[in-house]
Parts: sequence; C-alpha cells; structure tokens
Amino acid sequence: MTDFKIEPKDLFFILKEQLEYRRLCDLDSFNDLNEKTLDLLISEAIRFAKGVLDPLNTVAEVEPIRFENGAVRCPDAFKQAFRRYGEDGWMAAVGDPAYGGGGFPLLMRIVINDLMYGACQSFNSSASLTFGAARLIHSFGSEMLKQRFVKKMFAGQWSGTMCLTEPNAGSNLAALETTAFPERDHYRIQGSKIFISWGEHDLTDNIVHLVLARIHGAPAGTQGISLFVVPKVRVNPDGSLGDLNDVACTGIEHKCGLNASPTAALAFGGHGDCIGYLCGIENKGLAHMFQMMNGARINTAVSGMTLAGTAYRNALAYTSQRVQGRDIAGRSASDVTIIHHPDVRRMLLWMKAAVDGMRSMIYTAAFWEDMARASAPGPEKEHYQNLVDFMTPILKAYCSDTGFRVCETAMQCLGGYGYCRDYPVERYLRDAKIMSLYEGTNGIQSMDLMGRKMTLHNGACFNAYRNEIDRFCEARQGHPLLGAIVAKLAQTAEMLWACAAEMTARFKSDPLQWASYSYPALLAFGEVTMAWRLLDLAAIASASAGKEGSAYDFYRGKLYQATWFVDTTLPHTQARIRSCLRSGREIVDIPDNAF
Amino acid sequence: MTDFKIEPKDLFFILKEQLEYRRLCDLDSFNDLNEKTLDLLISEAIRFAKGVLDPLNTVAEVEPIRFENGAVRCPDAFKQAFRRYGEDGWMAAVGDPAYGGGGFPLLMRIVINDLMYGACQSFNSSASLTFGAARLIHSFGSEMLKQRFVKKMFAGQWSGTMCLTEPNAGSNLAALETTAFPERDHYRIQGSKIFISWGEHDLTDNIVHLVLARIHGAPAGTQGISLFVVPKVRVNPDGSLGDLNDVACTGIEHKCGLNASPTAALAFGGHGDCIGYLCGIENKGLAHMFQMMNGARINTAVSGMTLAGTAYRNALAYTSQRVQGRDIAGRSASDVTIIHHPDVRRMLLWMKAAVDGMRSMIYTAAFWEDMARASAPGPEKEHYQNLVDFMTPILKAYCSDTGFRVCETAMQCLGGYGYCRDYPVERYLRDAKIMSLYEGTNGIQSMDLMGRKMTLHNGACFNAYRNEIDRFCEARQGHPLLGAIVAKLAQTAEMLWACAAEMTARFKSDPLQWASYSYPALLAFGEVTMAWRLLDLAAIASASAGKEGSAYDFYRGKLYQATWFVDTTLPHTQARIRSCLRSGREIVDIPDNAF
Repeated sequence: MTDFKIEPKDLFFILKEQLEYRRLCDLDSFNDLNEKTLDLLISEAIRFAKGVLDPLNTVAEVEPIRFENGAVRCPDAFKQAFRRYGEDGWMAAVGDPAYGGGGFPLLMRIVINDLMYGACQSFNSSASLTFGAARLIHSFGSEMLKQRFVKKMFAGQWSGTMCLTEPNAGSNLAALETTAFPERDHYRIQGSKIFISWGEHDLTDNIVHLVLARIHGAPAGTQGISLFVVPKVRVNPDGSLGDLNDVACTGIEHKCGLNASPTAALAFGGHGDCIGYLCGIENKGLAHMFQMMNGARINTAVSGMTLAGTAYRNALAYTSQRVQGRDIAGRSASDVTIIHHPDVRRMLLWMKAAVDGMRSMIYTAAFWEDMARASAPGPEKEHYQNLVDFMTPILKAYCSDTGFRVCETAMQCLGGYGYCRDYPVERYLRDAKIMSLYEGTNGIQSMDLMGRKMTLHNGACFNAYRNEIDRFCEARQGHPLLGAIVAKLAQTAEMLWACAAEMTARFKSDPLQWASYSYPALLAFGEVTMAWRLLDLAAIASASAGKEGSAYDFYRGKLYQATWFVDTTLPHTQARIRSCLRSGREIVDIPDNAF
Repeated sequence: MTDFKIEPKDLFFILKEQLEYRRLCDLDSFNDLNEKTLDLLISEAIRFAKGVLDPLNTVAEVEPIRFENGAVRCPDAFKQAFRRYGEDGWMAAVGDPAYGGGGFPLLMRIVINDLMYGACQSFNSSASLTFGAARLIHSFGSEMLKQRFVKKMFAGQWSGTMCLTEPNAGSNLAALETTAFPERDHYRIQGSKIFISWGEHDLTDNIVHLVLARIHGAPAGTQGISLFVVPKVRVNPDGSLGDLNDVACTGIEHKCGLNASPTAALAFGGHGDCIGYLCGIENKGLAHMFQMMNGARINTAVSGMTLAGTAYRNALAYTSQRVQGRDIAGRSASDVTIIHHPDVRRMLLWMKAAVDGMRSMIYTAAFWEDMARASAPGPEKEHYQNLVDFMTPILKAYCSDTGFRVCETAMQCLGGYGYCRDYPVERYLRDAKIMSLYEGTNGIQSMDLMGRKMTLHNGACFNAYRNEIDRFCEARQGHPLLGAIVAKLAQTAEMLWACAAEMTARFKSDPLQWASYSYPALLAFGEVTMAWRLLDLAAIASASAGKEGSAYDFYRGKLYQATWFVDTTLPHTQARIRSCLRSGREIVDIPDNAF
C-alpha cells in the first residue's frame, strides 16, 4: 500500500487542456521538446515519487534522524534517494544544460515538485533547496563559483540551503547581524543562523549554504545585505574537497511535523575560520536572494496543495471502503460505504475542488513564469512577469492555509482513525502546518500583496491580474451552463477591484487600518483566483460533456466541483471584501492591556 | 514558567456579571453554598491546575507512556496527581455527598474542567471519564453497584472509562457486537472495544469500564443494547479487590496528539472469564449511556475552548515580548513588539473574542443544566432541559472546530517558533484536533441538531433556544452603543429561523439535500450563539465603561471584541444560511467515480 495518492488525469487535464502546455515547446528555449517529452517526464516522475520517495516516510518513522556531536544522521535510504534523485535528473530537470541541467521549462520543476513533495515532504525540501541554491549561484555567481558549485549541486552530489533567519531577524531581515569581513578573494563570515532547513545532514559530502550577511562597514538595514556562498567543506580549485569550513550545527529543532527534515541552528565562524564567497553584487544580496525566496514561496504553495491532494485521495479511498450506517434516503437495504453519506460527500467535494483549483492556479503561474523568461524584453515579457509577481503572495498564503484546511477535512473523513498514525493523514496535517509560517508568514504575504505588489510599476501587476479575470468573465458570461455563476464571479471581482483601490489609498493615508485588513483582502484575491481557475476548467470540461462512460464522469466532476465551490465560496468572499472596508477601528484602538 | 495561561477575570466576569451564578445558591439543592464558596473553589482549582497538572506536560515528554506485555505504564507524577485530584475533592466536586461528592452545582464541574483540561488535556480526561462513569452508575445502577463502585471512583481510588466503539461500530452503534451472556446475578461479557481513552493504565488499582453490549438474544439495532459495569479487577462483596477479570489490553494507538493519554484496544472475555453487571434497564443501555455521552460532548467543547484559551494567552505573551520590525505608522523610532503590528492584533482580537464567546456559551449551557436539574418537574424544568439538549451538539461541534482554529491562529502569532516544541502551542493544536472527531464526529452532531433536536418535543427545544435569542435582541435593540449590531444579529437570526424551518421540512422530503447542508447550518447556529453571548457580555461591560484605569480597559475589551467579531462574522453566517437553501444538488448528484 502506498500512502501517496494522486490522479494523473487531474494534472494532465490542467496541463494539456487548460494550459495547453505544448505551447511552451514553440518557444525558442524549448523547441527541442515536444508534448510527448513533457508527458513522459511527468509519468516518470510519478513512478519515482511512488517507488523511491513514498517509502521514505515509513523509513523515517522506524529510523528517526539523530543529532550527535554536532552532526545530523539520516537514514541510509534517504542518502540513496538523494543520490538517485540527482542521477536520474530530477534535481536539475529545468537547469541550464551547460551545467548538467535538463533544460526543461520551469513549469516542469513545479510539476515534479508537486509529485515529489506529495510523496515525501521532508525529503523533497532537501532537493528543492539544493536546486534553488544552485540556480541562485547560476544566476548571480562568478564563473568560478558556477564551475565550482553548480554542476555538483545539479547532479545531487552536494546539497544547498538558504540561510536568512537569525534569532533577532525573522520577518525583519533588516535586523540581521551576520558579518562578512573582506580578506583577499573571499570573506570571513561570522554569525548565527536559525531555522535552516537541511542545514546539517549526511546525505551528501558537502553542503553549500547561501548566506545573507552584512559586509563589515556596510549600511544598516536591507541596503547593506550581501549574498555569500559558504560551503560546509572548503572546495579546492580543482573541485576536490578540502578542510572543514568552521560551520557548526549547534542544534536541531523539535517540531510539530516535518520530522524527517532536520532544521538546524548554525554557527558560522565560531572559531574565526569560516570562509565565504560573495555571490553577485555587494549590498544587493537581498534582491538576489529574492529569486530563491520567490521560488521557495511558490514551492510552499505547491507543498500545501500537494499534501492536500494526497490527503484528499486518502480520504476518498477510506470513505469508498469504510462501511458504516444506513443510507439516509433508504436507497440500500444494508449498511453503506460512508461516501454515500451526504455530509461526507460535502467534505470530499470541497477537497476535490480546493485541490484542483489550487493546482490550476499554481501551474498557471508557473506557465506564466516560463512565458516571462522565454519572451524577448518588451511588454509581453513584462506582462507575464507582472502576473507572476502579483500571484506569488496569493499562491503562498492561500494555498498554505487552504492546504492545511484540506488536510484537516481529510482527517475528519476518517473519523477517529484519522487521528492515528496508522494512516498518513495526520502526518500530512502536521507537515502542512509549517507552510503558513515559513518563507514569510502569511501575514507578511498579505502586506506584500496589498502594499508593495499593488503599487509596483504604477499598479501594472494588479492591472495585469485584473485583466485576466475580467477577460475571462467577459468571454464566458454567455456560457449556457456556467453563465450565471460567471456573472457572480464578475460581480465579486468588481467589488474586489473597488476594495483594492480603496485599500491602496489607505495604504498611505491610514496604514494601521490598512494593515488590519490586508489578510482578509488576500484571502478574497485567493478565492477569486480559485473561482476563475475552477470555472475555466469547468468551461473546458463542458465541451466534452456529451461523451459517455467514465471519461464523461471525469468531466462532469469538473463541472460539479466548480458550480458548488464557487457558488458557496463567493458569498464569503463578498463578506470579506465588505469587512475590509469597515470603518470600525477596533483592531487599532483596543488598548494593549485589554487583550 | 508555566505553559498554562488563564485570566481569572474573564471567567469571573461571565460567572458573576453575566450569569450571576450566586443565583444557583438560592436553589434548594445548593442553599448551603454562597457566592464566596463558589469563588473560592475556582481560585483553588486554578492553583491546583497550575501547580499540579501543568507540570505533567513536561513529565510526559521526558517519560512517555509505555505499553509492555498488555500493561500501560504511566509516569509516577501522573499517579500522584490522580491521587491528589481525588483526595482534594476535584473528581467529585459536583457529586452526591452521600457517596463522598462535594455537592456543588454541575456548572462548577465545567469550570473545574475548564481549568484542568487547559492545564493538562491528556491527564484530565482520565479524571473526567472517571467522574462521568461514576455518575452514570450513580444514576442508573443498583444500590449494590453504587456502594461497590461510586465511592471509590469519586475518591479517585479507581478510575472509569466509557466503552462504546468497536472496529465495525463507530458512528453507528447499532452495529455493535459485544455480547453479554446471563449467568446468575451477573453476565459474561465477550467482545472487543477500540479507541478507549484511559482504557488501560496504572494510575489506579482498578479500572471500572462502562460497557455497551448486547444481551444474548436481544433485538438487533440500538433497541437491544444494554449497559454493563465491567471492572478490570473483580471486587469482593466487602469492597476489596479479587481476581483479574479477563479484560485484556491488546494495544494502544499512536496518535497525532494526546500522547500522554493511552487510547486502548480492549478484549473482554478473551478467555471466557469476564464478568459484568447490568447497569440500569435491559435494552435501555444506549439511552442510559447518553447521560455520559452528553457530558462527554460538553467536555469536548470545554476542551476545545480551554486549549484555545491557553493558546491565545501564550500567543499574547509572546507577541507582547517579541521585538521585530518597525511600527507601520511610525509611532516609534525603534523596533517594536509585534503586538503593535495590526495583522497580529487582528489575530489576537479574533482569538480573544472566540475564547470569550465559547466560554460564555458553554458556561451558560451548564448554568441551564443546573436550573433544569434543580427545578421541580414542570414547564420551567422542561424549558431548561430543552435548551441544554439543543445546545449540546452546537457546543460540541462549534467549540471543537473553533478551538482548533484558535490554536492554529496562536501558532501563527509565534511564527516559526510556533511550530517548535519549545512552546506549548503546537501541542495544544495536536491535542485539540481530536475534539472534532470523538464523542460523535462534528458531522454527526450537525445531523443530531438539524434532525433530532430540531424536531424533538414538537420543536420545543428549538423554540426555547430561539426565544432566548429573540428576547435578547428585543431587549438590547435600543442600546446606545450596540443597538445597530444587535439589529444585525436580529436580522441574521430571522434568516436562520426561516432556514431551520425550511430544512426541517426537507429533513423528511429530501433527506439527501438536507444532510448535504446540515453542517453549515450547525455553524450558523454556532455563530449566532457566539454573537448573542458576546453582545450580552458587551452590554454588561458597557454599563461599567464610565470607569477609569485598567479595569476600564478590561471592560472596553469586551466591547471591542464584540463589535468586531460580530460585525465581521455575521456576514459569513448569512452566506452560510443562503448556501443551506441552495437548490443546486452537486453533492448528491456527483457520480462516485467523478471524485
């Protein structure tokens, strides 16, 4: 029995029928690919996820990670999986072929992560961080850094991390204190980092830390932060490993979930002997790091969504087998499987729609990102980049919160068994909980969306997003089956645009009131995005609704999930929008000691 | 540092100013008590909870429970705490003095549980089950059973359990198969039970199981279920312990939370040698058991609420100390504690209102229960009993779901630290998750509310509840500060009454559609109840709003929480109500293989 459950048809429906991802192969960067190559990659990724990663969860329970004398020991099966992940090309499937990458569109990295995170969240974060760190060096590092590190990381021989947080610099990176002292062609790094995922482990011979630090004498605040490559083991010019680099793991966290993924506290240069290399431009480290952070934010959305997906399918499997109670309408003389109880179906239908909508919005954003990267400089490139920029905080916050809610609902479908470790659902729930917290809390995301993103490029990001929704509503308003519900989306969207304009004005005039409602506003954007993607899937499915048999049911499912989810969700969206515009100032005015 | 955090003023405000609980002392049953005695009991319970129970959580982490050769080993500190809990009178504070009980009103049991569950959820379930089981024997057992078991259980020398669930009989108890074979003055019990909280342990010398079983030859279904007292160790007529009674623990569950509370699978009569005593009337076992089940449902609400309460106060403590980032309105030149960030205040205010509203609705129902018990037979007694019956499923489902949501929000306030075991919040979250699942899933509660309770006594339960809300709205509609928001409650309540009438009609005409929306309907009842209780607290507080100083802030907090929570919640309630009345049948119509 495998824990990881996924329905490939759902993925392919989005990729092939909604996004028509073969269009990516028409772009210059990818014209050696065709739709079959893309399809095949996904089928192979499913095989790898099920065969190699899913079993790791059981291994991790029997053989938990250990922290001994500054070293983290992982199960052997994790080491083997990491090696194979690199050898089989999953790490760098979308990386630059000049450094051993596979040259696939970025969308494929998201689909691969969908499968790999779903199969083993703890494990895949190590792989995902490694690719993100390697890509960062590839984007901003010198040729020396690229030659020395990127290939080994793409191949899965070395792993990577992102080192941002310090005890006093979490959400506020401006406060970070780690310092880099110039010395010949490198720097001496000194400082402490915490909450470093896979910051220490024995999966690979070396760990390449991407560290934010302040060059001695640099300006205060975010303007004085630079990016450094700091290997755990020093690397000789010929690429061989040298001495240890004075990076010490001082402890690992005991967490609610993600227990097979070590979260380390690291001391850099505790003995004054930690060497790091500047990556990119001095004092531009935070801007550089945003490439990796934005990737991590989208991967957080992927994680929330895919944990939700496998949780949903586990609940579906359970409710299809578990016999309990009579049919409430008396359609059967004997006890029935609980999928026949309407309240169970309510939960299943909500989860189904939630997962499909989230997957569609994530894949859509990833598709846009490829379009942005592959387009020549100009308005089209800007348009796609604006869409991605606007969507990133929505994806991160909405999918992390909703993914968690789906895991909770899946557990509810299993009754008391859902609370027991015999089933994977409670683990999905615990693993999913981190997603609203790391890579910028969801509150931070909401302020990024309603503040920075709303005003960026004179509102161009917001307008690009708004146009997508408006155009869809216009195009589908007359749809014979969906017209009425599309009109409801159009009406809600109009309310949201007006709310966004009002809030953007408040952002300057009344920032306290603005920040009191940035989070519900983000949720409203998330729900409108969901409605749009689900109705789009339904409109596409309705064209196939004449067909018969099980394929027919598949398409009907897309229609049912859309009309139900959208019709029961948008009234809540409208309620949120109205709340955002309240004049009541309770949040601001309540005295601290009245809490 | 204690994990358990509670603000006694919040409890006393509800008890003394909202419920005026001194009125209970006017009842014949309690006229040897006065308000001071009640107050003192609470202050002592807080001391016990903080001093004796809260430290158990740390003990449990260092010394987890072990299952060895059929026996569960608990830490010594748990044994000592259980003994003191009995000796100090907490177990039976509200029990019949004739059997060693304290003779306090039932409301006090709820307040004690509020404190004790908040301090150590795992531990207090053992005590709470023991009292519930003893009370059940006290209510329905023969004098022999009462003499032999109740005193020892009230004193905390023996513990108790409730044994309902079997592998094939969870939500559907009609399917249960455990059998009782008549033999002289007792029965031989044979069958398996699962998910038995504290079903096996070494806290006490004996465990008294209250077991539902079918007397050999009894009718099928719920009409053939009887209640039995089945001790782990047989008891001689003189009250001393005899031989073991062939009750074997075949395993304990590995769970998401509640890890210091053993959840046992029990085999009764595996060697044909398990003796049990009929408790109450043959074939009326399920009806008898409902006393304990209803108590457990209300305690589930208490648990969800109080875990939420301590989670909230932990978040408040953290956000009051943690310095991170600048004040968004520039009110301070240096970095500020995060309680000054509006999005954090939004979370705190929501949690504060959620906890206060839940506590008020639970205490109110407990107060009604005392009024029902103490009143002479007649319309007043019926009125109060109807209110309790109607409220029970609302309390159970709403407070379990909302309590979990509060724990989640508290974790969010702590950022990444919230995910770490260094803080108790992630444990509260994991412990709280069981509440929506056990004692009847929340889906079951919603069908109980919208089906059985709505139609019970020709709608008398619903009408009693409705009258309470309507009367409040009428009385407070002209309130100078709260009138407008009370009017909004009145409008929402009108919508809900109409919805309830429509759904009650559907209950018979279209049960599938009815059951598709019973859960959102229950949530709407929960939210209306919250609005009512919070506005009532606010109205009372507003009378004291002229005062100055910190007491003034306390009262202002009650006003802010009410207007904000109610004004941002009722629009969602209205959205839910409209959804319940949808004509769309997606949940019913979607084909199984379209999921």
